[in-house]
Amino acid sequence: MKQPEPLGAGKEHAPAPNATPLLTVLNYFHPLTPEMGDFLKKNVTGLSVRKRKLLLKEGNRCDHVYFIVKGAVRGFTREGQKDITTWIVVENELVSSILSLNTQEPSIENIQVLENTELLALSNANLQKMYEMMPEFNIVARKLLQHYYADAERRAFIARLTKAENKYRHFLLHHDPLANRIPLKYIASYLGMTLETLSRVRKKFSSKVGT
Amino acid sequence: MKQPEPLGAGKEHAPAPNATPLLTVLNYFHPLTPEMGDFLKKNVTGLSVRKRKLLLKEGNRCDHVYFIVKGAVRGFTREGQKDITTWIVVENELVSSILSLNTQEPSIENIQVLENTELLALSNANLQKMYEMMPEFNIVARKLLQHYYADAERRAFIARLTKAENKYRHFLLHHDPLANRIPLKYIASYLGMTLETLSRVRKKFSSKVGT
Repeated sequence: MKQPEPLGAGKEHAPAPNATPLLTVLNYFHPLTPEMGDFLKKNVTGLSVRKRKLLLKEGNRCDHVYFIVKGAVRGFTREGQKDITTWIVVENELVSSILSLNTQEPSIENIQVLENTELLALSNANLQKMYEMMPEFNIVARKLLQHYYADAERRAFIARLTKAENKYRHFLLHHDPLANRIPLKYIASYLGMTLETLSRVRKKFSSKVGT
Repeated sequence: MKQPEPLGAGKEHAPAPNATPLLTVLNYFHPLTPEMGDFLKKNVTGLSVRKRKLLLKEGNRCDHVYFIVKGAVRGFTREGQKDITTWIVVENELVSSILSLNTQEPSIENIQVLENTELLALSNANLQKMYEMMPEFNIVARKLLQHYYADAERRAFIARLTKAENKYRHFLLHHDPLANRIPLKYIASYLGMTLETLSRVRKKFSSKVGT
């Protein structure tokens, strides 16, 4: 199988990818300075990754933060032979393995593309450069991290619920657009229930909506 | 029952609490400027909270970040009548409800003191002042948030494991000092297993250590 190929990476004259969707999202958190915008436009790489390919494999170090322009991505870990989905996100979200990116230790999680996906990648080296050269970028990152940290707490909260119906209700509350887009086996794994239980709960919810 | 009383809060001549343990921990993440140190010394409040009291009750807004000088604190949510422990931390850690602090919406979690506990409290208003008046404090916070976000991912990972032995192994790996200090009912709840299962797993682990 072919590995995902960076578009334009290492090619001096390759066209720079369109960084606008990333800049728009970052600006929403905190206004970017022109210097930050220029740096990102010059230093993000475009990636086209085919469905089911891995962006990060456990045991490898996570060296990038990715922005999803189009597509869907999940994180998963393994417990023995079991594959456990830990998060699922779609376009306009940033993804990375915060544990491995922070510590630069081998990742305990995998990142996999669930649909043919267009990404922008920023290397950790360039991220660190931004923190040092443009101190105001720490404000952008502080606000982003607050948001993603709160998201992680929400995911941990769902994972700790014991009743399938409560889990699915919370899932709809925070991830409604995923419910009819992502293959059910990943949603079931994310919610820590069997496919049969998820189907039963979904049926119950759809009949409630119908009444 | 008496509510926790802020020591020195609102009393003009009350002695300021000793902020050194907090400054030491923050300095470890990123060097504080003298201005930051002075601001914190002037604006943190000391709190003595008795065992079992709540620092935050669900439905209320979280308005503070707390630093544990001495003691132990847990977060918990409810599912029906069930009380689910979501985290347990001890001295030298910061605690808050990131979800409520970020959004200023009513908290979905409770924060409870598990031992007689000494805390330092910084109000959200003062935290926001620091971000605005001392932009470099965003670097400190960015590094802290990276650390706590990674911790949240680790907790979500433990919560998603299905085998009791794997859960307890991970717990020992990251929370070893809690294993013989925190009442087992909270550890069992945190790990999503019954007290009986936890006791059985602990016996197995201690006999492994002994051989």
